[in-house]
Parts: sequence; structure tokens; C-alpha cells
Amino acid sequence: MRIIGRTNTLRKVISRANRSGRTVGLVPTMGYLHDGHLSLVRRARKECDLVVVSIFVNPIQFGPGEDLGKYPRNFKRDSSLLKSLDVDIIFAPSAGEMFPKGFSTFVEVPELGKKLCGRTRPVHFRGVTTVVAKLFNIVSPDSAYFGRKDYQQLVIIKKMVKDLCMDVKVIGLPTVRESDGLAMSSRNSYLSPAERRSAAVIYRALKHSKELAAKGVRSSGRIKSAMRRIISSVRPGAKIEYLEICDPGTFEPKKNIDGPTLVAVAAFVGRARLIDNILINP
Amino acid sequence: MRIIGRTNTLRKVISRANRSGRTVGLVPTMGYLHDGHLSLVRRARKECDLVVVSIFVNPIQFGPGEDLGKYPRNFKRDSSLLKSLDVDIIFAPSAGEMFPKGFSTFVEVPELGKKLCGRTRPVHFRGVTTVVAKLFNIVSPDSAYFGRKDYQQLVIIKKMVKDLCMDVKVIGLPTVRESDGLAMSSRNSYLSPAERRSAAVIYRALKHSKELAAKGVRSSGRIKSAMRRIISSVRPGAKIEYLEICDPGTFEPKKNIDGPTLVAVAAFVGRARLIDNILINP
Repeated sequence: MRIIGRTNTLRKVISRANRSGRTVGLVPTMGYLHDGHLSLVRRARKECDLVVVSIFVNPIQFGPGEDLGKYPRNFKRDSSLLKSLDVDIIFAPSAGEMFPKGFSTFVEVPELGKKLCGRTRPVHFRGVTTVVAKLFNIVSPDSAYFGRKDYQQLVIIKKMVKDLCMDVKVIGLPTVRESDGLAMSSRNSYLSPAERRSAAVIYRALKHSKELAAKGVRSSGRIKSAMRRIISSVRPGAKIEYLEICDPGTFEPKKNIDGPTLVAVAAFVGRARLIDNILINP
Repeated sequence: MRIIGRTNTLRKVISRANRSGRTVGLVPTMGYLHDGHLSLVRRARKECDLVVVSIFVNPIQFGPGEDLGKYPRNFKRDSSLLKSLDVDIIFAPSAGEMFPKGFSTFVEVPELGKKLCGRTRPVHFRGVTTVVAKLFNIVSPDSAYFGRKDYQQLVIIKKMVKDLCMDVKVIGLPTVRESDGLAMSSRNSYLSPAERRSAAVIYRALKHSKELAAKGVRSSGRIKSAMRRIISSVRPGAKIEYLEICDPGTFEPKKNIDGPTLVAVAAFVGRARLIDNILINP
């Protein structure tokens, strides 16, 4: 396994792989890897000849006052995990390598990026699409792997790839969960033991929405009230940033559940802003 | 020479060329070709195995009230010119092929795109960078060729390529001029015979700026006044949109000419908005 920090070095390795006809898989991460990331890596390992995992805490997807400085990092642990999964290359550039002084180009899907998480994180998805476009250009992967926990991110990246005719297959894989249902996230490390125990309520509320829909409840309002009650019962006064029942392609709110529907939540548990979602199709 | 309208068809042809190790050159145009375009095509023909010329009047680089509907078109003449220059492929997609309903991704260099032409054409360069990024993704050219008449466009495209690590060599070639100095432009077709005769004053004013700088004049204010006098002497009350003496990399105005300097003009001659520029380095 090679650890590469420089864009030009990586490009040379990649173009050698291309010339010899090897397929390339990319798993973009911000590090502090959990089983969610590792499921992406395993799939890439199965499907591609050369597997590149990028570890880069992308400063331009954090807004002012967000947790860029505190974002958890453990490169040593990450690299030993990736080595055990037979990854070929870790791409771990510095912030200055990716965004040198004077960097001023952005890739944006403005409409989709304004919805859900974009309402409180206005520069977030612009930062994501810009760094992912750049990684795609550096690595030219045949396939790139993303988790469905960040469902909005996945949809936006697929939209970018389609609109700009990028030659990459974007593969979204299921959210990996702890035994109590909490979606795995690097940000779970922010939780105190008590917060950690109560955090699973988010997924319980999501599962409840699916159960209600399966029972024939169609009103988004009714389902959202039931979900809020579940969350409040465990975390009274919980700061729910959004709880949305919407179209899974456009994120437009739905009054009624008719056909494929995304139920998405962002909530603070302590200082950790957690997101999770479920797709339902009654 | 093949004429291709569909993205997927072109990609197949290109990937065949890539597999056989042929280099690809792209000349993006909006058609209604003149000797400026043809100089780019000739250079591409000299340097690349497969030459692709795109002809696409890009709707998203025109603002409301601009000349999108009136923009001159003559595909028959264009294709016969390109055939005579031994071009391999004309890529002539429809607007719906490039920007199908729901298209919503943009590539932008916001800072540079706000200056000069961007002041009166706020969406112009976003439209240019988006379509060029898309063309680059479709054609994956080794080299792409642009004229220096659109100097700001050239700088912005180079910046996009560098910032996003696109694997394309961007080549800027000199402005081709009519015998009286008028920069060739498809929009010159808007000029009446009388307007056509007077339009050369723009280049005369630009040349005068270079002469003054060569004589030791350093004050941008003095040089701009002299240029305005020259333009007014031929076209009294001419609508000069901007006349700027600035840094050729950032387009920041310069009070004094010290080192490489861009002198750039946008002016209306009749209903034709003409732009031209000159680089000076006294």
C-alpha cells in the first residue's frame, strides 16, 4: 500500500494503471474510518483492480463555526485498517495541496444543495462537489463509492456526474449501523456515553415512519408528529434541525407519501450534529 | 469528417482513439467560423492525431436580453471550411443534448468572472466554464485551443483547469485581425458597412496605449483618456462599456503600468458589442 500526498505523484501512478488497462476505484473519505467506510472499501476491492482511498478533511465543506478544527483524525489507525483491506493507495493530500492560495473555482448544484442540510449549511455541498470533482479529475476512477447515510450528498454527486458528463460510475451503498441502529459516523465520537445511548432514537423514529407508512398512514404531517414524539420521549427538547418527508430526487417536501419517499433527519445530540435517513416506498 | 450530435456517440469514438493511443485536440466554438477559429483548428491539426471542433451556441453563457436568438449561424459553410482543414469530427449537439430539462450543475470561477465583461454579463463566464468543463469531460482532449481575443475567458478557463486538476493543456493563440486591425469576431457580422469601417478604431486605441507605454507613459488614467479621445474622434458618443488597464492574471485595475499589463476594451458599435485587448510589458 502506498501513501501519496502529492497530486502529481498520484496522477502518474494512475496513468500507469490506465495504460495497463487496470480499472480504478475511488473511495473518498474524511478519515476516522468506521465500518461504513470499510464497506465501501470492500466493495471497491471486489470490483476494481486499483483501489484508491482518499483521506482528506475538506475545509471548504465546513462553514464558519462548524467543527472543522475538531473533526476527529487518526491517520495511523486508518492506514492500518486500509492496509488490512488490501487497499493499493491512500491519497492523503494537505489542505494546501488541494486548495493552494488563490484557489477560486467551484462546482455547484445550487438547487439541490439548498435543501435539507443546505438550509443550515449553505456552503457545504458546494464544498463537497468541488472537492469530489477535483478528486475525480485527479484519480479518473471508473467507479466511486459513497454511503447512503449522506443521501443528499449522494444524489447531488450523481447529479453533478450526469450533468457534466463525468465518466465515473457513482455507487451508493447502504448505511452501516451500530447494533442499536445508530448510523455509523465519524461524528459519533463527539457523543458522551449517555448521549451515545440516546442517539439511537433517531433511527427508531425513522423506522417508525416506515412502519406507519406500511400500515397505510399517508399524511407526512401525522408521521412527522409521531417521529418528533419518539425523539422527544428520549431526548426532551432535542434540537431537531430538520425532519423532512420529501421526494428522494428533488428533496421537495411531500404532503403525502405516494411512491418513493425520503425521510431525513438532522438533529443535535449534545454537540454532535447527526444525520440519518430512510427510503420508504409503500 | 464525421458530424456527431450525440454525446454518447462522440464518447465511443473518443475512447476508441484513446485506446489506440491517439492524441485528441479540441477547438470549442460557437460556429460562424472566421480566420481566428481557423487558426486554432490549424494548430490543433498540427499537434493532435484526432481533431474535434465543437459548434454549439451555448445558451447558458447569454444573459436575458443578449443576442442568443440573433447569434449568426451557418453550419453548412462552417462544416465545409472544417472539412477543408482536415478536421476529424464536428461535435454539434442540440441545446437539449447539452442541457436537458433539469440540468442544474455549474462550474464557476466567481472572482475572475465578476470583473471586466462579468460586470455587465453576470452569468456569462459561469456559462462558459460550465459548457467547457462539460466538453472537456465528453472529449477528454489532450489539448484545447482558445483565442486571445477573449482574453478573460482564456484566463478563467486556465484557472478552472488548474484549480480542478483537469488533465487538459489549454492553449491560447493570438487574435487574428482584419487588414485594418479589427479583431475577427462572429459578431462583426452585425456591423453595417459604415460601422464596420469605424470599428477598427478600437484596435487603434489599443495600439496607442502600447505606444504611449513604450514612450514611458505610466499613468493608466492618462493612457485611458488618450484612448477615449481616439475612439470619440471616430465615433462621437461611443458607448464604451469598459476600458480597463489591469493585471492580466487577476484583472485588478492598475493605476500605473509596471510589468505585464492587460489593456481591455468592450464597446458597442451599433448593436454589436465588440471586445478586444492588448498585452503590454514596457
